[in-house]
Amino acid sequence: MIVRETLRSSRRDEMVDITRQVAAIVAREGWTEGAVLVYCPHTTAGIAINENADPDVKRDVLMRLDEVFPWEHPKYRHAEGNTAAHLKAITTGTSQTVIVTGGKLLLGRWQGIYFCEFDGPREREYYVKFL
Amino acid sequence: MIVRETLRSSRRDEMVDITRQVAAIVAREGWTEGAVLVYCPHTTAGIAINENADPDVKRDVLMRLDEVFPWEHPKYRHAEGNTAAHLKAITTGTSQTVIVTGGKLLLGRWQGIYFCEFDGPREREYYVKFL
Amino acid sequence: MIVRETLRSSRRDEMVDITRQVAAIVAREGWTEGAVLVYCPHTTAGIAINENADPDVKRDVLMRLDEVFPWEHPKYRHAEGNTAAHLKAITTGTSQTVIVTGGKLLLGRWQGIYFCEFDGPREREYYVKFL
Repeated sequence: MIVRETLRSSRRDEMVDITRQVAAIVAREGWTEGAVLVYCPHTTAGIAINENADPDVKRDVLMRLDEVFPWEHPKYRHAEGNTAAHLKAITTGTSQTVIVTGGKLLLGRWQGIYFCEFDGPREREYYVKFL
Repeated sequence: MIVRETLRSSRRDEMVDITRQVAAIVAREGWTEGAVLVYCPHTTAGIAINENADPDVKRDVLMRLDEVFPWEHPKYRHAEGNTAAHLKAITTGTSQTVIVTGGKLLLGRWQGIYFCEFDGPREREYYVKFL
Repeated sequence: MIVRETLRSSRRDEMVDITRQVAAIVAREGWTEGAVLVYCPHTTAGIAINENADPDVKRDVLMRLDEVFPWEHPKYRHAEGNTAAHLKAITTGTSQTVIVTGGKLLLGRWQGIYFCEFDGPREREYYVKFL
């Protein structure tokens, strides 16, 4: 059983909170004890777990990732011009695994699950699979 | 079955070797064939697998991560001031999955499992779940 | 059941596409619904999922990772001299988990699975485990 979800990102770089969507899938499917894999099938986006409180964390994270992996670079050769998005996706990771217990996601108090867009805005999808 | 372990980090940035603790849980719980998820419920700490021999590897890794994601930055806005810790946690990852076979962790010869503290010292915890 | 595969890298930094090998293992073992863990037992290499189309993506990714985590650095102390390889391995990740459905890997259209060598050329291995 694989659940496919879609979303539309609204900027080039964006951390979209998908925690509620993933929690709703776990509840709806009746998954109780195990873990869920949240998987991104794109190569210029990723999945990360990070703080869900102050929105400045997301802003700062995206700002500094963009400095470390700049969009423009004299040595990039990839014709599509989005090498930085590939680097950011590799750094954040393609998937995250979250424990499920009692039918709920076992996240830390400040943790949220984020779809990390690095080459938007676009229609995107992610998969949720119970392990 | 989820095992919760606690630890106390002693510095702001620290890689704490938790390999023995995770191996002891696997043995005690009688998990024989599968994999364990080692999960960090914090957003300013992570879990990584890396070299367990020369302590200078940990020192060098933490030193360079601190240069790439500096604690002070004129453009950070997050009021708590620990944006760098969030960036380092995203880079190392929130969890690691390690194969279990014959009741033991199947780690490479030089691999250890590390709880990576990026905003210590603090009381911390991590979860171990058999998949 | 753990499948161990070997490969020989040919450069210091190299992203070796192992998608076909992993897909062949899934088919041969008759794994139909679940997920596979692709695990790297080395500390100076990792596993990443990224674009399988334009080879310039791999080149650009390795080029920029080498700038962010340079091989030579006045503050590195690790005697073996390969601190950068450890940093790159931590950044890409030790393992990746890919969904299997209908006996096939559920990868995105442009996704490939890569063994990421950061201290080659060497004989290397990776493990594939069905979850």
